[in-house]
Amino acid sequence: MTKELILYTHPQSRGAIVQWMLEEIGQPYSVHVLDYSSTMKAPEYLALNPMGKVPALKHGDVVVTETAAICAYLADAFPQAELAPALEDRGEYYRWLFFAAGCGEPAMFDHAAGWIPETDELQSSLGYGTFEKTFDTLASWLADRSYVAGDRFTAADVYVGSLLRFGMDFNLIPRKPEFEAYVAPFLERPARQQADAKIQALMEEEA
Amino acid sequence: MTKELILYTHPQSRGAIVQWMLEEIGQPYSVHVLDYSSTMKAPEYLALNPMGKVPALKHGDVVVTETAAICAYLADAFPQAELAPALEDRGEYYRWLFFAAGCGEPAMFDHAAGWIPETDELQSSLGYGTFEKTFDTLASWLADRSYVAGDRFTAADVYVGSLLRFGMDFNLIPRKPEFEAYVAPFLERPARQQADAKIQALMEEEA
Ligand SMILES: N[C@@H](CCC(=O)N[C@@H](CS)C(=O)NCC(=O)O)C(=O)O
Ligand SMILES: N[C@@H](CCC(=O)N[C@@H](CS)C(=O)NCC(=O)O)C(=O)O
Repeated sequence: MTKELILYTHPQSRGAIVQWMLEEIGQPYSVHVLDYSSTMKAPEYLALNPMGKVPALKHGDVVVTETAAICAYLADAFPQAELAPALEDRGEYYRWLFFAAGCGEPAMFDHAAGWIPETDELQSSLGYGTFEKTFDTLASWLADRSYVAGDRFTAADVYVGSLLRFGMDFNLIPRKPEFEAYVAPFLERPARQQADAKIQALMEEEA
Repeated sequence: MTKELILYTHPQSRGAIVQWMLEEIGQPYSVHVLDYSSTMKAPEYLALNPMGKVPALKHGDVVVTETAAICAYLADAFPQAELAPALEDRGEYYRWLFFAAGCGEPAMFDHAAGWIPETDELQSSLGYGTFEKTFDTLASWLADRSYVAGDRFTAADVYVGSLLRFGMDFNLIPRKPEFEAYVAPFLERPARQQADAKIQALMEEEA
C-alpha cells in the first residue's frame, strides 16, 4: 500500500522548496495550508513540529521537518525520480546540502539582521565564518558546474538553487554571475513551474 | 582498490566529531593536523576547502567538508558499519542531522555571541526561531528515546551527541536531564574512547 504524502506549509514560506521537490518526485501529495499565527501554533501541529514552523512532511507515519532534510528524505524514498546521486557523488551532495543549510542560511539571515561576526575568534567558531567567504565559496564551486553534485540535477540543487534564488530576489545576497547562471535553467523545469502555479493558486485562494 | 581516507583536522575542533565517526566506521585513515593560522589558510588546503576551516575529509578523489555532511557520507559509504538507517528511519535521521546543523549550531553560537532574535519577525524568518525553543524541541524528542532515529545508534547520534556534549561542556546550552541521559552512554562506546585517546595524543605531540 502506498503511504500518503502530506505537506504542511504556507504559500509564502520555505514550504515552496518542498513543493518544488514534491513536483520533481511526481507522486500525488496533499497540501495542508497553515496560518502563521493560529493553526501553526495549535497543539495538533505542534505535535508534529514543536518548533511551530513550516514546512513539515508526513509520509505515512513518518514526520520530517527541516526543508533540507525533507528534500534528502524524498530523494531517497523515491529512487525512481533519480534525485539522490549514486554513492560516488554523495560526498558532494551532502557537502553542499549541509553547507547551504548550516552556513548559507545562517550567514544570510544573520547578515540581514545586522549581526556581523567582526572578531577572528567569532569567525573561527561560527560555522560560516563570514557572510562574504560563505557566498564566495559557493560561487567558486558553481563557477564551472551546472549542478552541485556530479553531473546531474539532484535534491541538493532544489535546496541550494532555492536558497540562492530567494536570497537574490530579496536582495539578501549578492547577485553573483555564478549564482544567476546556476539558477536560471532551474526556472525552466516543468516541476518548478508546476509548483509555482500551485503556490500562486493557494495565494489567490487565501486572498 | 580501497580508496584512502584522509582527515584534515585540528585536535581542538569539530574535527573530533569526524574522528569519532571514523573510529565507528573502523576503516584505516590518516590524519593531517593543520595549524589554525598557517596551514589552514595555505593555498594547498584552500583548494580543498576555500572556507579555510576544518574538518575536511578526502576519500579517494572526493572531498567532503561540513562535519554533518562527512558523518552522513561515511555512513553511506561504509554500510557494513550500520551507521546509516534503513529507509523507514531516514526521515528522522535527516530531520535531526539537519536540525542540529542548521538550527542547533546557529542557535548556540548566536546566543553565545549575544545575538538574540527579539522580534516576532526575526524569530519567524530565522531557521531556529529562538535558542530556547530549539533546545526544548530537541529535549522533547530525546525524552523517551536513546537514539535520534529509529532504535539504533546512527551517524546522526555521533553528530547530535557531539553538539550537545560540546554545548554542555562549554556552558553554551542548558544541561537538561534529557541531554545528559542521551549523551552519557555514548562516552562508553569503544570508538569514542579510541578517538579521544588519539586526539589526546595529537594534543600532547603539539604541546
Ligand atoms: N529550519 C527550518 C526553518 C523553517 C522556518 O523558519 N519556517 C518559517 C517560514 S519560511 C516559519 O514557519 N515561521 C513561522 C514561525 O517561526 O512562527 C527549515 O529549514 O525548514
Ligand atoms: N560548518 C563547518 C564549520 C567548521 C569550523 O568552523 N571549524 C572551525 C574549528 S571547529 C575552524 O576551522 N575555524 C578556523 C577558522 O575559521 O579560521 C562544519 O560544520 O564543519
